[in-house]
Amino acid sequence: MNPDWDAVARQTVERCRRLARYSEEPGWTTRTYLSAPMHDVHRALREWLAPCGCAVSIDAAGNLRAVRGGSHIAPKLVIGSHLDTVIHAGAFDGVLGVVMGVALFEALGRRELPFDIELIGFSEEEGVRFGLPFLGSRAVTGDLDEAVVAMMSPAIREFGLDPAELPPARLRGPVAGYMEFHIEQGPVLEQLGLPVGIVEAIAGQSRLEVRFEGSAAHAGTTPAHLRKDALAGAAEWIVAVERAMRDTPGLVATVGRITAEPGASNVIAGAAVASLDIRHARDEVRHRAVQRLVGEAEAIASGRGLRACSETRSDLPATPMDAGFVALFEEAVRAAGYPVHRMPSGAGHDAMILAAHVPAAMLFVQSPGGLSHCPQESVREDDVAAALACGAEFLSVLERRHAGGTV
Amino acid sequence: MNPDWDAVARQTVERCRRLARYSEEPGWTTRTYLSAPMHDVHRALREWLAPCGCAVSIDAAGNLRAVRGGSHIAPKLVIGSHLDTVIHAGAFDGVLGVVMGVALFEALGRRELPFDIELIGFSEEEGVRFGLPFLGSRAVTGDLDEAVVAMMSPAIREFGLDPAELPPARLRGPVAGYMEFHIEQGPVLEQLGLPVGIVEAIAGQSRLEVRFEGSAAHAGTTPAHLRKDALAGAAEWIVAVERAMRDTPGLVATVGRITAEPGASNVIAGAAVASLDIRHARDEVRHRAVQRLVGEAEAIASGRGLRACSETRSDLPATPMDAGFVALFEEAVRAAGYPVHRMPSGAGHDAMILAAHVPAAMLFVQSPGGLSHCPQESVREDDVAAALACGAEFLSVLERRHAGGTV
Repeated sequence: MNPDWDAVARQTVERCRRLARYSEEPGWTTRTYLSAPMHDVHRALREWLAPCGCAVSIDAAGNLRAVRGGSHIAPKLVIGSHLDTVIHAGAFDGVLGVVMGVALFEALGRRELPFDIELIGFSEEEGVRFGLPFLGSRAVTGDLDEAVVAMMSPAIREFGLDPAELPPARLRGPVAGYMEFHIEQGPVLEQLGLPVGIVEAIAGQSRLEVRFEGSAAHAGTTPAHLRKDALAGAAEWIVAVERAMRDTPGLVATVGRITAEPGASNVIAGAAVASLDIRHARDEVRHRAVQRLVGEAEAIASGRGLRACSETRSDLPATPMDAGFVALFEEAVRAAGYPVHRMPSGAGHDAMILAAHVPAAMLFVQSPGGLSHCPQESVREDDVAAALACGAEFLSVLERRHAGGTV
Repeated sequence: MNPDWDAVARQTVERCRRLARYSEEPGWTTRTYLSAPMHDVHRALREWLAPCGCAVSIDAAGNLRAVRGGSHIAPKLVIGSHLDTVIHAGAFDGVLGVVMGVALFEALGRRELPFDIELIGFSEEEGVRFGLPFLGSRAVTGDLDEAVVAMMSPAIREFGLDPAELPPARLRGPVAGYMEFHIEQGPVLEQLGLPVGIVEAIAGQSRLEVRFEGSAAHAGTTPAHLRKDALAGAAEWIVAVERAMRDTPGLVATVGRITAEPGASNVIAGAAVASLDIRHARDEVRHRAVQRLVGEAEAIASGRGLRACSETRSDLPATPMDAGFVALFEEAVRAAGYPVHRMPSGAGHDAMILAAHVPAAMLFVQSPGGLSHCPQESVREDDVAAALACGAEFLSVLERRHAGGTV
């Protein structure tokens, strides 16, 4: 398996751009869970997969499933990513991973491998349609509860599928593991000048809302020493959040939303509410940082005669990738001739859902400008070529290991 | 003139509370420019003024004018404040000054003074109805331009008045000066334990909008050193605004409104817009502070790879009160047996408009809790009694000066 990866990468990028035209909104790429243009995406993928000799189907959750081989008793490899998009999306988030899977199938041609490969184009990862992400991968791992199935069912029927068939959509047979190619959606690889990075963990994430309360008062008649300015307290805390991030390697901490009440230019804010999004690959580091920042909010408030209270809105644990699979990827990246760089993923991915059931690993492809979830989202063709070569090496490593009986 | 000021103050507070019931909204006090309940206010004031033997009229702008004397050639004293309110107002802002004027007329009884007194209940100060404040006092000083008159005319006609009569509504004859009693609307006098304060200047005011621009990015995938977080920059600047206020005696500087864009908890803010309201009794101090804070915004932005730009929305100069009238008030306050405290007014008042034409001075009455522009706005009866005694002494001082030929 040694094609012209540059040509394959070029075709892969073109295919991603073609799929981006299948949209609910003309002029934009918006393709939510089981929206009509998903039929077009499925049709295109079937067309590209047809010469590969694999069995293609759409499961009851709307995931595209393509199985190569199908006769081996050896545990199969699952390659996947998602086909839905955010509103006004780019062409590569999710889609690139599936289209790269197609390219690997094409590159393999009729070559016999000692294991099957199942390519999955997940129908839903972004959570746009129902406010709940990972519906596609949860259907595959059997992690949908009754209430969620009830919520999804009308959309499933409208798409021409049968929700009663959800149980057999679960991943069947012994599985060696799951691998996902995905754009980084951040600026790290570009800054390092690297085409690809190996994800070693998906960061855990806490979301909090922190409220400062003081006293609203007239901006003209209330002198400095008699103010209880909630927004000034919140501002001091935002600076402390940034300091905590800089003090703690690998931590990201963001205040992205703030409101001052009443929010008039001539009224001292009586209350200010700030969001906090905080992530780290190690849960204990994240929890310590949350504790520190809640403590700093209280200390800042008490030094100013304000009150601070915080509410945790979500607390998702970190998901480490499988150490063995990560090591296989390292071997593959090195064999393909690229520098090995391990990194956490700050965003959630389908691999998070799969990792609870099977060994999982991800390969990030550089995101120019760190841009994602916008029409400017892009990839460079030589980075895609590098990622494809790494993927092919991964299959070769797996093949050799399998022959040696170690997978 | 030596009545029981405690009893007069009690009646004054009761009258203010009665006028507060004349409202556009049941359950609240809301009385905008020439709204129907203003007729009730005028009727009540006429009723109280009737025994004082003064000529009461409503001018074409809707101001109540009560002239005591009317035959002197000596310059007259004007006492005034406003009768309109903000939405969901308290009972004392503006109204107290007019009702105190009535009480002084009553206390004077038939006593002959060597000068006339004109009491004006201004029809509009708050600017609620047309977004333009001081319409009443501007009509009296002749500071309304044609466009504003055109805007006001339908309301004037609807109230039963004739806009063609606006020119003769201007203050006529020689005027010694203007005095205004008003609640402080801030917490300073309460903190100092003083019933009254003499306003020496109405602070000048600048309003700016300061915009920080960085790059919106994913809160999970963008590490600290690659962020251009506009909200973090704005927060650092808000702390600097507070520092400038504490460094500069008499300065008040407030960020009361802030918006982060896009304003999602999981997106680093690409832009943040903050308001700045900054006031000082001396224009050069205020202008230096604005310059310093605009400079700090730029410095903070450039240190973070952001851009900052600011736009001045308004720049109103400070209005010093008349030194001679302020000195008369000092003499009066001392004669009444109260401590003399000079202070700036952080809020605008009708005295600002009058001061451009005639000597003007104001006496502030303590605002419990600093509360104003809300139903909880209040005054203490003994503070009102103190202010009335000071007002009576002011008239006596003026009478003596007049006799001595120095006014």
